[in-house]
Formats: sequence, structure tokens, C-alpha cells
Amino acid sequence: MEGLMQQQPLLISTLLEHASRHHGATAVVSRRTEGGFFRTTWRDTAVRAHRLAHALDGLRLAPGERVGTLAWNTHRHLELYFGVSGSGRVLHTINPRLHAQQVAWIVNHAQDRAVCFDLAFLALVREILPLCPHVRHWIALCEDDRLPADTGIAGLASYEALLGTGTARYPWPALDENSASTICYTSGTTGPPKGVLYSHRSAVLNAYAAATPDAMNLSARDAVLPVVPMFHVNAWGMVYAAALVGAVLVLPAQALGGEALYELIEAEQVTFAAGVPTVWQGLLDHMASRELRFTALGRAMIGGSTCPESMIRDLQERHGVQVIHAWGMTETSPLGIVCTPKREHLGLAADEMVALCAKQGRAIFGIDMRIVGDDGHELAWDGKSCGELQVKGPAIVRDYYGNTEGSPLRDGWFPTGDVATIDAQGYVQITDRSKDLIKSGGEWISSVALEAVACAHPAVKYAACIGVAHPRWGQRPVVVAVLKPGAALGRDELIRFYEGKVARWQIPDDAIFLDDMPLGPTGKVLKSALRELVASRAPPRSPG
Amino acid sequence: MEGLMQQQPLLISTLLEHASRHHGATAVVSRRTEGGFFRTTWRDTAVRAHRLAHALDGLRLAPGERVGTLAWNTHRHLELYFGVSGSGRVLHTINPRLHAQQVAWIVNHAQDRAVCFDLAFLALVREILPLCPHVRHWIALCEDDRLPADTGIAGLASYEALLGTGTARYPWPALDENSASTICYTSGTTGPPKGVLYSHRSAVLNAYAAATPDAMNLSARDAVLPVVPMFHVNAWGMVYAAALVGAVLVLPAQALGGEALYELIEAEQVTFAAGVPTVWQGLLDHMASRELRFTALGRAMIGGSTCPESMIRDLQERHGVQVIHAWGMTETSPLGIVCTPKREHLGLAADEMVALCAKQGRAIFGIDMRIVGDDGHELAWDGKSCGELQVKGPAIVRDYYGNTEGSPLRDGWFPTGDVATIDAQGYVQITDRSKDLIKSGGEWISSVALEAVACAHPAVKYAACIGVAHPRWGQRPVVVAVLKPGAALGRDELIRFYEGKVARWQIPDDAIFLDDMPLGPTGKVLKSALRELVASRAPPRSPG
Repeated sequence: MEGLMQQQPLLISTLLEHASRHHGATAVVSRRTEGGFFRTTWRDTAVRAHRLAHALDGLRLAPGERVGTLAWNTHRHLELYFGVSGSGRVLHTINPRLHAQQVAWIVNHAQDRAVCFDLAFLALVREILPLCPHVRHWIALCEDDRLPADTGIAGLASYEALLGTGTARYPWPALDENSASTICYTSGTTGPPKGVLYSHRSAVLNAYAAATPDAMNLSARDAVLPVVPMFHVNAWGMVYAAALVGAVLVLPAQALGGEALYELIEAEQVTFAAGVPTVWQGLLDHMASRELRFTALGRAMIGGSTCPESMIRDLQERHGVQVIHAWGMTETSPLGIVCTPKREHLGLAADEMVALCAKQGRAIFGIDMRIVGDDGHELAWDGKSCGELQVKGPAIVRDYYGNTEGSPLRDGWFPTGDVATIDAQGYVQITDRSKDLIKSGGEWISSVALEAVACAHPAVKYAACIGVAHPRWGQRPVVVAVLKPGAALGRDELIRFYEGKVARWQIPDDAIFLDDMPLGPTGKVLKSALRELVASRAPPRSPG
Repeated sequence: MEGLMQQQPLLISTLLEHASRHHGATAVVSRRTEGGFFRTTWRDTAVRAHRLAHALDGLRLAPGERVGTLAWNTHRHLELYFGVSGSGRVLHTINPRLHAQQVAWIVNHAQDRAVCFDLAFLALVREILPLCPHVRHWIALCEDDRLPADTGIAGLASYEALLGTGTARYPWPALDENSASTICYTSGTTGPPKGVLYSHRSAVLNAYAAATPDAMNLSARDAVLPVVPMFHVNAWGMVYAAALVGAVLVLPAQALGGEALYELIEAEQVTFAAGVPTVWQGLLDHMASRELRFTALGRAMIGGSTCPESMIRDLQERHGVQVIHAWGMTETSPLGIVCTPKREHLGLAADEMVALCAKQGRAIFGIDMRIVGDDGHELAWDGKSCGELQVKGPAIVRDYYGNTEGSPLRDGWFPTGDVATIDAQGYVQITDRSKDLIKSGGEWISSVALEAVACAHPAVKYAACIGVAHPRWGQRPVVVAVLKPGAALGRDELIRFYEGKVARWQIPDDAIFLDDMPLGPTGKVLKSALRELVASRAPPRSPG
């Protein structure tokens, strides 16, 4: 027997219309890539998204066709999020930090028919132009009078000219909620990138989950700053969730340095911001050097890679900012596992609370998870058994776009490639990426655990641990560290720092110091580069 | 083009499994109708719901068949919420405060095949028994050894015997999320009751919306007390939302008096409770008489009828409890309009904040609304234009069960029968039920506005205003009041209290004092009874 409730699809356009109708006067503030700020409202954001949808009709982009973006977090990217998906096309957010060859590969694989780009990426666009013959429209995200002459891009249009000045409301189509809304490629350090094709349904369900108190805890009283780029996994769902609750949305464009972020957070009285640890570290370093304080920021979501305990302490104890540690990936929309306390944790001592916050957290409704051993059997939630984390839910990938190999799922579960424990309360601790685990003498060593020890040393700013081939032990761990400005630390001193903190055979054989950590396009440490670097050096000594 | 995310239906069983897997040790505490408490967990609640589902299979109840409940808020009713709907049957929550004839009519209209009832309702069941020949199974919600002898109910079974002691997991069916999960009848003061047939999808979406910070703001740190009965509109969605976030759930059974509620709230350190104004008034009266304080309660949701400003002040200013005023109805699942401040309201003075909280609130994502004039045209959101509130969304009714008349919708909108204004910020103020409006001399008078004035008098406990037929003016307002214990107030004094507070022609012609207010089965004032009472008296004087 069918229920008798109204049939209304879950659509990205309904998020925008909700914000426009019920939070029309609420601010949307964007730094402009060309300088200064663009201050608008949800109501006027909707007006411009309507105009954009009309313009896409004018370009004769068929339903389902892909529109690529190479863009920072700005109001125009925001309009593209809603106008492209809402009108039935598929938004393809491209990471502009990738190499031109990779960008071209992704544009071609997704068969983008239009590409919208910030002028900052003009040189990149000119590089990929001859490699992407199927792109029919190149659109620069700028005013018409800022369009450079002689770009060599035939038919290059400015976004603002395209938008025009009409104000006719666009009749958002009543799409099937399972239709594709967005595609985002994994950065794929091994093998070619893989496209994750989100649906309207997955976007709206993920936004509901993101807004709940145990995740981002978003309300109409918040001002929300996605430091995480909008070309990464739907900006972690913050754009959709901000519309769902009618929060003020603050967009930082390319200004992701500590000083610019601090000024923006203070000027707009941001209450919630989210980004990777390296971005937070830059912000905290800037604040420490000037003895600055937040006046409004209440919550910091940190994900992308494991947040060091020292950063949790700095934010929570020194700055009074609640750290919300989270885990997700391109394949999970991305929100799934978030670290917020349960009722039983409310009486924890400060140190115990920091230890809890250092875990990646627990499953928010909409995601289910398990850990699986090498033999494919589910492992116990005892905080000790360590296996591959697998997830499922309506906002988890079931297949990659254009995948010609077998299904990525195993028994309906998506294998994340992360290795984790789950404790009896359901809190996940990622112990490593399976490919980053170090196998020494037949035993696994967690690179994440070794990195946490190094990061706890007061002189260390960043640390990464890798396994280096060893004739007897298979692999041996090596720690690579970047020191804080002005700090001094010797190789032997750092190695001795591990004594008593990990098992003797897990202590790194060598310590290497770099001026800067090689980062991949998503801001994560590029361990492949570290492995090449270390492989070119002398073999490490044997363990004692 | 279809998205490539996992296809997982939104099902009530997934709410329970989430709570069981990820919040298994979290408490569920229920007062027992037979005395004492039943303390369990979400994990064991799931075990018993699994057993129940097996038992329903054993009774050969087909998918979609209705299982009625005549029950207070207890752990058994909770298990029925999940076990009946989760296994593919339709839970029919029946209001046991209705007259036996009405209960029998509803049971027959819904074609209930089984009815589960608290022993407190045995007399009622014996009355309806001969009227409901199609009910195949009568199940008493008690242990087997408490089953009374000689009930006259052939084949009467106890719930606990039915559940048995097996622990086999029940394989919840992968239902279509649009299939019916629950049916609830409107109390229908005019015309026969109407059945609203919820779907799994509407229940889960409503639970997501309920959990968000701008609605109930529920997390795994809460202990949640649904004072509102589980036979009213899904207990306002609190049961599902508590499972979604893994909150402690506290169930009060039949003990809804001020003293019992206060003791339960304190004993279980309840942080969030929800109920109608009369229940809150009873609680506040008890606390005032003993000078009691809450030690954990942080939020009170008040709905069902308009919450007087005096109650908002009492809770917020005296007790430090945030009042969350809300509006909904059986047809809206019920959550839709909730009063929480926006960012722009954070600096309001206390009095302004009380005035804001006295409004019913704004639309939470998932509901859209409009007000419509007599001519069917949408009215402005200016806080003045007053018209019928209409709503739509995926958790709003599209038709009644077994409806043989036309669709209740108008252009896709559900007409609520409530008359309201909406201000520029999107806040709704219900000015009246359309049938309760008083029309005097061709002008409308809001009964709610007149009641608010009387309730502001320190001697008045409850007040209701009705229109009484008048030969010259059509109708004239009359106020009916119940005084606080020990308070004294004269007819003329109460009428004079209106001077300067409403227009002169709106001042009630008469004031009548009762010892108790006649309440309908949902706890609302029975204005039909008041009209009969007043009609039997002398005609009121003419306005000055």
C-alpha cells in the first residue's frame, strides 16, 4: 500500500528556493578574485542563478550535459552550483591545482561541453584548449570589460555578459531526484582519476545530515565559511547545507593564507569554518605570531587528513573553538563520519576529550560502516581490531562514471582504502591509508601513529612517515619533518623522542628534515614524492 | 543521466538499525503503565522490535495490513512504532480519549486487522469489540500473567507472550520508501475523522528536519521526553528523530500531571521535552507551588495550540528554558513551522525576543508555505495581510485514506484551515482557525488575540473566546475563563481589562467563568462545547 503524502523530489533547486523564499535577506559575502568583495543575499543569488539557467538554455546545453568549472570559492561558483545542477545539467568541479595534462584528461573523460574558469586560470585553460576539442563554450568568470584581448580562445565569453540583465524567473525542471547533479574526480595518486557522479537526492540527503547538531550543527544563526575549495567534493556539502538552513555564507576566493582568513573570519563574524589541517595550521600560526583572538568563531571542522592533537588543543583550549574532526572522501559526498561527543562523554576531563576529538568520529544517520579483515570478514568494534573501513548509504558512490572495470563495491559496501579501528561506542580511528601502512618484519606499522608522535614535538610543524624498502625487514619506517620557524632539532634527537611512545621496533630508522612538505593538489602530503626522495638516499640502518 | 550513488530507500527500519548499531548502549527509559520503570537500550529495543516483527509474521498479517494501537507512550508502543512499520505493516495510532463510537468508526475505516492496547483501555476495547468484527487479533500490552481472566475477548493474547523469547534477527524488507508506514486520524471536530497515511519516506525526511538546530536541535547528547502522546501525529516525530541522532529516549506512559512529569524530567535529566500548552502549564503550576527548578532541561517545544506569552516568559526568564514554539497538524507529519531566531535576532532585547517566540515560526527546509486571500490569490509577507495558511512538501498529505470526495489540495497546496500572517522575515503568526474567527459587523476578530489579552491577566489560568450569534452584528465575542486557584476576578473587571488593548468594538460583550475548560481528545479547548454552553444563556448585550 502506498502512502498518501505529496510527491516532491529532493532537488538542488529546492535548496536554493528555500533559502531565497525563507531567508531572502540573509547575506552571501564573497571575496572577488579581481579584488574587493561582492555582497549579496540568498534572494539575489537565486535571481542570478535563474539568469544563469536561462543563459545555459541559450547555449543549447542539453539536459545532463556537463559544465566544468575551474574556480575558487566565489559568488559566481555558487551560482554555478545551483544554476547548472538546478536546470538539469551536471556541474563538473575541476581541481585547478592538477597538472594541465590531468585537467585535460578529466575534461575529456567527463565530456564537458562548457568550461567556466576564473581568469587566474587563463594560462591553464590555454594549455588544455588544444587538448579538449569537444568543449564548445569557454566562459571566463568575470565582467565583460575585464575579458583580456587576444586570449587565443575562440568565442571566449564573459560570465557576466552571458548572464545578461534579464530577471525572468527560471522554471526549475521537476527532475527525477536520482538524476545526476554534479561530478567530481578523485585526485587518484595511483591510476587515472575516477569520476563520482552525485545525484540531486544524494546532495540533499547529505545536506540534511550535514546540518544536524552532531555534524556541522548549522542554523540560521550561523555565518559559514567553506575554506575547503568548492572544487573538492561539493565543498564538503557546506554550500547546500548553508542554503538548507539559511545561514550567512562567506566565500574566501583564492585568499587561503592565515592573515586573509583571519581578517575574513573577524570581519564577517564567521561562526563555523571548515578546512584541511594545513589551512588551519596557517591560520593558527598567523594568530600566534600576532597574539590574535577570534571574537565569533565557535566551531572548526577539520578533515581531509588526520588532525593532530596539538591542533585540537590549540583551537579548543587556547581559542575556545570546538574542533569537529571529520572523515569523508570524494566517494562519500563527503560527509559520513564526524567526531562529536555523546551524552556519556559530557563529563570527560579535558585530556580525555582531546583524545576523543582526535578520533575521526562516528557515523551520522545516512551512513553505515564496518571494518573488514584481510579475509573479508567483519571485525569487532573493540577499538583494537584493525581492518579496512567500508561504508554504505544513499550518498555513497555505487560506481564510477564511465567505469569499464568491475563494480567498486564489495557485497554492497564501498571499500574506502582506509584502515581503521572502531570502538564500542562506534568511534572510528583511521590508523592509515592501506597504501601508506608500513610492513616491517611481517608486522604492520601505522604511519599516522608515527606522524602523531613527531607532531607532538614542540619543534615540529609537519611530519610524515613512510616505509622504505629494506633487505631484511621488507620495509622500515622513516620520518620526514618540517620544523617550525626558528626551531632546531637534530636527527638523533627526533628519533630518541619516539622512545617509550611506540614499540621499540616501530621507531623510525631515520629522520629527514625538509624546508617544505610536498603537497598534492588536494593539500595532502604527497607521500609518493617523499618515497622518491628517500629512495635516492642511502639505505637506513637496521633496527636494534 | 542518472547519478551513480547507492540506491537505499529511506525506511523506518533504518532509523532503528542506526540507533542500534551506532548508539546501542544509549538508554531508553519508559514508565510502565503497570507501575515502575522499564530501562533498556536502543540495542535491546531493536531486539524486541525484531521479535515483534517475527510475531506479526506468525499472525499472518499481510504487508500493508493495519495494526491499531490504543496505548500510552511506553517501550512497547515504541517497539510497535518500529516493528509494525519496519516489517511492512501499517501502524495505526488511535487516540484512546475519543468516544468508543469514534474509536470503532476509525478502527473499521482503517480496516485494522489487529489492535494492541494498554490494559487501561480494556473497558474501551470491550465496548468497541462487537462493533469491529474485522479485527482478527486483540493484543493486550502486558505480561502474560497480567492478562485478566474473563475479559470476554476471544483469543486475547498478551504482547509479551506474543513476542516470545527468540532472538533471531528479523530481515527487514527493502520496502519502497513511498509505501505506507503509519496512519493517524484527525480528531475532526466537524465531520468524520480523516486518515492521514504517512510513508516511510515522509517519516525519515521529517525526522531529518526535526533534528536540525532550527527545529528540535537534537543530538546524541540529549535526553528526549515526548510528553505529546505517541497516538498524536507520530509523537511530533520525536521517536524517529531520537533514533536518528541516538538520543536517550524517555517515555512517560500515562503520568502526564505536573508532579510526575517534573520528577521524570529531573530523574532522567531530560534536556528536551515537547507538549501542548496545557501540559506545560500543569508542570509550571506544580513547580511554582513547590518553588522547584530544572537542573537539566534546556529546551521546551510547545505546539498544538498557541503558547501564551506569559508561559514563554515563565519558561525562558524564570526557568532558563528555551521555548521553541511550533506549528503543525496531523496532515503535516507534523513538523513544519518552528520558531527559532535568525542571526539578525541575536541582539534582540528580552521583550522583543518573547514577542518573536510568541509567533509560530518559520518554515524548516522540506516545507513551503503561503497565505492566500478569499479570492485564492497569494498575499504579501508583510506581517499584516491575513489569509489562509497553505503548505506543501514531501511530508505533507496529498489525500486522505479512503477519501471519496475531491482532492483536499488546491493547486498542489494543502489548505490548513488556519488563518495567519507572514512577516518579511518569513515568520508565521497564526491569528485563528478559520472556523474560530469571529465576524462582527462584517469585520473579522481573532479569537486568539482576545485570548492572549485575557491570559495576560494575572488571575486568569486559561481563556477561550468564541463568537456568539447576535441579531444586529452577526456575531459578538464572548470570553470564557478559568481562574487560577485562589484568584478572584469579576465579569466587568475582565471586560475592562481589554480597554486600550484591542479596538473598542473587539472587546468581548460578556465574560463567563468556569471551573474547568472543556478539552477535546487532543487536549485542545473544545470550542463547540463552549458555544453550546453560551448559546443556552441570555443573549449578550450590544456593543457600545
